[in-house]
Amino acid sequence: MKFQNAKEALEALKTLEEKQWALSHAMNMIVYDAATAAPKNSAEGRGKTLGILSAYMYELIAAPENKEMLAYLRAHETELSEEEKRRTALTEKTCLQISRIPQEEYTEYEMLLNDAQAVWEKAKNENDFPAFAPYLEKIVAFNRKFAGYYNPDLLPYDALLNEYEEGITMEVLDVFFDKLRAAIVPLLEKIRTAEPIDDSFLYRHYPADAQKKCAEYLMEVLQIDRGYCGLAESEHPFTDNFNNKDVRITTHFYENNLTSALYSVIHEGGHAIYELACDDKYTRTALAGGVSMGIHESQSRFFENIIGRSEPFVLAVYPKIKEFFPEQLADVSAEDFYRAVNKAEPSLIRTEADELTYCLHVMVRYELEKQLIGGTLSVSDLPREWNRLYKEYLGVDVPNDTQGCLQDTHWSGGSFGYFPSYALGSAYGAQMLSSMKKDLGDLSERLSRADLTDIKAWLAEHIHRHASLYQPSVLLENACGAFDAEHYTRYLTEKFSDIYNLA
Amino acid sequence: MKFQNAKEALEALKTLEEKQWALSHAMNMIVYDAATAAPKNSAEGRGKTLGILSAYMYELIAAPENKEMLAYLRAHETELSEEEKRRTALTEKTCLQISRIPQEEYTEYEMLLNDAQAVWEKAKNENDFPAFAPYLEKIVAFNRKFAGYYNPDLLPYDALLNEYEEGITMEVLDVFFDKLRAAIVPLLEKIRTAEPIDDSFLYRHYPADAQKKCAEYLMEVLQIDRGYCGLAESEHPFTDNFNNKDVRITTHFYENNLTSALYSVIHEGGHAIYELACDDKYTRTALAGGVSMGIHESQSRFFENIIGRSEPFVLAVYPKIKEFFPEQLADVSAEDFYRAVNKAEPSLIRTEADELTYCLHVMVRYELEKQLIGGTLSVSDLPREWNRLYKEYLGVDVPNDTQGCLQDTHWSGGSFGYFPSYALGSAYGAQMLSSMKKDLGDLSERLSRADLTDIKAWLAEHIHRHASLYQPSVLLENACGAFDAEHYTRYLTEKFSDIYNLA
Repeated sequence: MKFQNAKEALEALKTLEEKQWALSHAMNMIVYDAATAAPKNSAEGRGKTLGILSAYMYELIAAPENKEMLAYLRAHETELSEEEKRRTALTEKTCLQISRIPQEEYTEYEMLLNDAQAVWEKAKNENDFPAFAPYLEKIVAFNRKFAGYYNPDLLPYDALLNEYEEGITMEVLDVFFDKLRAAIVPLLEKIRTAEPIDDSFLYRHYPADAQKKCAEYLMEVLQIDRGYCGLAESEHPFTDNFNNKDVRITTHFYENNLTSALYSVIHEGGHAIYELACDDKYTRTALAGGVSMGIHESQSRFFENIIGRSEPFVLAVYPKIKEFFPEQLADVSAEDFYRAVNKAEPSLIRTEADELTYCLHVMVRYELEKQLIGGTLSVSDLPREWNRLYKEYLGVDVPNDTQGCLQDTHWSGGSFGYFPSYALGSAYGAQMLSSMKKDLGDLSERLSRADLTDIKAWLAEHIHRHASLYQPSVLLENACGAFDAEHYTRYLTEKFSDIYNLA
Repeated sequence: MKFQNAKEALEALKTLEEKQWALSHAMNMIVYDAATAAPKNSAEGRGKTLGILSAYMYELIAAPENKEMLAYLRAHETELSEEEKRRTALTEKTCLQISRIPQEEYTEYEMLLNDAQAVWEKAKNENDFPAFAPYLEKIVAFNRKFAGYYNPDLLPYDALLNEYEEGITMEVLDVFFDKLRAAIVPLLEKIRTAEPIDDSFLYRHYPADAQKKCAEYLMEVLQIDRGYCGLAESEHPFTDNFNNKDVRITTHFYENNLTSALYSVIHEGGHAIYELACDDKYTRTALAGGVSMGIHESQSRFFENIIGRSEPFVLAVYPKIKEFFPEQLADVSAEDFYRAVNKAEPSLIRTEADELTYCLHVMVRYELEKQLIGGTLSVSDLPREWNRLYKEYLGVDVPNDTQGCLQDTHWSGGSFGYFPSYALGSAYGAQMLSSMKKDLGDLSERLSRADLTDIKAWLAEHIHRHASLYQPSVLLENACGAFDAEHYTRYLTEKFSDIYNLA
């Protein structure tokens, strides 16, 4: 045995973690640059560099001495703190996984995804699902196989879900989605017959320069320290965190759409707030950064919807927004604006969906993934089943696969089990709101001043600072009790009944 | 012996070269991002990552098996092409150097430079040379020692010069600078009594947005393919090349100065043109990219001064520049503008110097470096000697060390032997101009249409495409004969005699 004591093994763990972070930092930096700044024909050189850095990462994680170190730590678990145990467990998971997938299969899969991406883009543009189908079949087969590598004790789809939201199972999701659907579908039925909301003024001409200034204003309202957080432009908004002192969010300014960029800034701002408030002590360890997709989406969607689309907050920030667009919004009252940004309407495209219908889009994907990975749905039947579920859940007819089962990039990118975390995040957020109100009392007065100080402090204390120390379910339970979808359904019902004056 | 034949050893060389490029790409990307996009307080995490990537680079280059591979290639030199021989030699140089400097000394030096940077900034701001002196003494001592590691057969300062401009010696530079001084100093004397040029209109208010558009126009004139070349903003202009298909230049827009940004775009554009035209076959080998500082500066200063400040070119682009600033330039003729951007005047600060006096600033630094590294000047005497030389060469009195020997960042950054390449580059450029005119005939007509096609093609053919295949002196000699300062002194004398109507 190479180690004399746990301290020595922990030193080796730390070195491994820091190298992982450095290589990730470098690779993410190159990808971030590609999305925000790189000249458009520079992909080839970037690809070569990323390939070599990936190989460094693979060597680092697959190194045989890691096994020895992790086994030593396992054997001396009683000498480890809670944090050290969790660092060991998470690092073990990473190391096991990478050595469980045979290198040839991994390479073959990476090449498949690379091809699939281009085929999917073309198929989407040309509404040609059959062109994409053979690739999707292979991706599904790989994922079913990898699920066994990830965790052979779980059902394949549960193993995949677990990659994005540790501890989540179909059993939990089935109950959650049933409750959610039971609340949303009848609500939507009522809204269909209520007086429609006019949001046409959101699509007037809003110059990018003024939108940029407005975005900066929203960053101030979110109290995001720009010394640690960048704001750049990219084709699609996203958040990147290199560490808890260097976070970047991006947005895209559309001059014919006022709210797309502004709410994406609040959404990505929520991700950034989470990362920036992670405790320094976890930096460059396996515990650094947000713990899961679901908890991350809970924060982004909390700020975007629960705060950003709440009546007192919208009424508070609207006068300032109007200053950036005095002519365009001359005839629009704060109340008009509030109702417009909350217009609920079944639609075809997930990324454009409103707060109320969003989870229905997610549910369709969940049902389909469950069956594809479970083997009860063939890829060739996917479009038919997609269209059937859209009709059933959202009441809309899907005119073509481009606006149907080809719309998302996730499957061509190999992500199965990712979608449910969007819905889980929304529900977690509503549950956090309930607990927050218990602790802080009513939030309306603070929101009517657009003062997020106490709200951010509550989230930092109960969620953010813990970074990846706890499993998502434990983190949530510590903060606000066991997961319960009730908070979310009640929140949605109350909010949209009020907005649409439903009985 | 591990290799069966030269082909196998060349494969190993290629792998080493590609890993070097990937690690450099990653590190440069992080540094580039820091200068152009990163939030201002994000340095700490970046430093950690760069430290780990540097360690990867060190391990890569210092690996013992490299020696075996390079020795094998040396022993089989007759089987190698010219390119393969040069790749072997350049890689050998890198490997030898890194293993010649003991790791502890290297680390100690890096830490010294890190501290020195901060001390120098403070000393410069507070005009406190004595605070910086002890650091400079140590840096000089390290450089003298490293010179012996680099090449023990050369005089120390020659060894340092060789790092920036392979093959250049004090013997060559002494002759060069003597000639140059003999031409410039009397020319300046005459200009002092000639009618002064009014350039005050260059310092009116020029909004950054319009300057940006004008910068884009100049990129077009330079025929730089934006699909492979970015243009960003940073505190100081610079050029970064990740490979010959991904180059970035930066500039800084000052609203009270029209020409600072515009000529920096042309200057950095010259660097970019060089990198972009390097032959693809050298990509990710030791031969990739521009061969030396001197040749690089020859290109940047060629486009900035010889082209960019030439009469026909300025008259050609001025009407378009005026379109971006119709009010500010309403009373300024093309001829006024041409004379203003060529105003020659002795001054204190190198980076603000004009084309004529620039080399005098460089000469002062050359004389001082030669003596510091040679051991004939002590650091404590540096300010006095600096001031004496400024009086002798430029005729100006240096009022304080902030505007004197503390002005440049180079010495605190450990760069000794770097400055002369600026002057060499200027002279190389003038020599290229002579050869180009022999091949292409008079350039005035092309320049009066701002058409750089033939000029760029000549440079691509004779200089750019060769990347680092030839030593700078060989490259220059192949293109336009042995180095001869005469071309440059004649160019300067003719140009400035004409501008100032000297007898």
